[in-house]
Amino acid sequence: MIDGLVFANDGAVVKLPDHDAIVKKEIPDGKVALLIGGGSGHEPMFHGFVGKNLGDGAACGEIFAAPSPDTIYEAAKAVDRGNGILFLYGNYAGDNMNFDIAAEMLEDDGIDVRTVRVRDDVAAAPPDRMDDRRGIAGDVLMIKIAGGAAAELDSLDEVERVTRKAGDNVRTMGVAVSAGSIPETGKLTFELADDEIEIGMGAHGEAGIARQKLQTADEITDQLIEKILSDLPFGKGDEVALLINNLGATTMMEMLVVNRRLRHVFDEQGITVHRTLVGTWLTVQEMAGFSVTLMKLDDELKHYLDMPASSVGFSNM
Amino acid sequence: MIDGLVFANDGAVVKLPDHDAIVKKEIPDGKVALLIGGGSGHEPMFHGFVGKNLGDGAACGEIFAAPSPDTIYEAAKAVDRGNGILFLYGNYAGDNMNFDIAAEMLEDDGIDVRTVRVRDDVAAAPPDRMDDRRGIAGDVLMIKIAGGAAAELDSLDEVERVTRKAGDNVRTMGVAVSAGSIPETGKLTFELADDEIEIGMGAHGEAGIARQKLQTADEITDQLIEKILSDLPFGKGDEVALLINNLGATTMMEMLVVNRRLRHVFDEQGITVHRTLVGTWLTVQEMAGFSVTLMKLDDELKHYLDMPASSVGFSNM
Repeated sequence: MIDGLVFANDGAVVKLPDHDAIVKKEIPDGKVALLIGGGSGHEPMFHGFVGKNLGDGAACGEIFAAPSPDTIYEAAKAVDRGNGILFLYGNYAGDNMNFDIAAEMLEDDGIDVRTVRVRDDVAAAPPDRMDDRRGIAGDVLMIKIAGGAAAELDSLDEVERVTRKAGDNVRTMGVAVSAGSIPETGKLTFELADDEIEIGMGAHGEAGIARQKLQTADEITDQLIEKILSDLPFGKGDEVALLINNLGATTMMEMLVVNRRLRHVFDEQGITVHRTLVGTWLTVQEMAGFSVTLMKLDDELKHYLDMPASSVGFSNM
Repeated sequence: MIDGLVFANDGAVVKLPDHDAIVKKEIPDGKVALLIGGGSGHEPMFHGFVGKNLGDGAACGEIFAAPSPDTIYEAAKAVDRGNGILFLYGNYAGDNMNFDIAAEMLEDDGIDVRTVRVRDDVAAAPPDRMDDRRGIAGDVLMIKIAGGAAAELDSLDEVERVTRKAGDNVRTMGVAVSAGSIPETGKLTFELADDEIEIGMGAHGEAGIARQKLQTADEITDQLIEKILSDLPFGKGDEVALLINNLGATTMMEMLVVNRRLRHVFDEQGITVHRTLVGTWLTVQEMAGFSVTLMKLDDELKHYLDMPASSVGFSNM
């Protein structure tokens, strides 16, 4: 898969010889480096997000497993240009441990490393336990903004500040209609009856907050967006980025129907959408379902969100 | 769905009041207009390809059905800026008939219309019966090139010439691993056993050229690419665009494995890849499977292919 990914980059990235990591060929001296990464099986997340104004490199784990500390360390050394490195990844125990070990190794080498963990999944824990929230499709907007900031700002402090602000303002909730499978075995990650859906399902089949009978798109959308809006909270006068992410086997037709309903809710609440993204970015193999991500924007976040960006797995800008 | 699509365009398009068609709000006077369209159910194709350096408008049919002549006519009138219109769509009997009727109505109004039909499906008919070939994922590269040409060239003749050249040099073949369903009924478009695949399957479940037992990604890829390469034929010294299209529920992981094998074959044959696209552009609802598209490029086609472009359903440039 990684060989195919490198080929798909048409010469812009290389794979590290002994590690499952890719890095951009051309990273300017003195650039604040952005290293992303996580388990495989969610393509194009993470390793499809190395590119122009996105990640400088990605450390790839096995399917649904964190990359090793050694792989993260070597990827970090390969993207380092002497001005520090931002680690940006989803908040999972395995990733946290391995990225932290790598960060310690790098600090021993005298390299400044900062860490921002994406923790946008509203369903994973209540608001007073943000550190227990998982990172899901909010990754897309976070990498977009961090990538823009790391391309334009020459201070790791500043890149960290912007990225952290984005993280504080992003919320996601998903729904699964059918399960994805484990590639090695073909087995489904969980069981769900034909007429059932799971609200708040995690990206590896982690239990959500409710299992219920199939409903209309409007009813499901209302349920998701109510939880999202009340969590931050989002409210009248807010300007947001909206991202509807396909978990794998969902049709764009269905996501557009969801988008229509979302916009009616936003109109009622006085929320303005600055930019809409509808597509397939963080998948769980062939899982059917989708998630809705909202990020509250200010002028600074808008600026980085709107910067052109391009990679194998992402660009709608 | 179309309401949701219009919202997803963040103000850049409008829906025609009484027709299922969308058109860009800002089309310069004197621009050669590009109208695309076809049946729904293949999202983001076609109506997700209205945008910067892509289509100026799209006429949308019901699920798997051609748009009506009236809808095509009204969409054409809405994109017309006095310098002629190129119709670009897939080669299917219903689309051909309805677009041709609309073209006659427009000619009666004194509007110059040219038609290029995408007919890239190698599996649909032998090379001496090109007119019997269906349009499938080659649509993506065709719209990209026609969109660039229509944005840059001020002559309908020239836009038609470039688009026709692209069409003469594009070939696609697909494989289905499982069927998609009809949204109104939930019924699958065809039956395929768990251990079977269909080589050359059409975009609506049309029969392919062989039904066979499941094989490895490398074996399937070899089968597809052998047919594609010998058809044009592609050969030593050729420079190509490569597009791997997800028919709906295929993982990017699998498509990247396919990409690796393709590149090995190209290396052996002395074929160079100018640009690779791996993603989800022409779907058949939740069908699992993929197609491989190759377009032989010259400097002119490369120029239009490489132009920046952006729409709800497309951009990796």
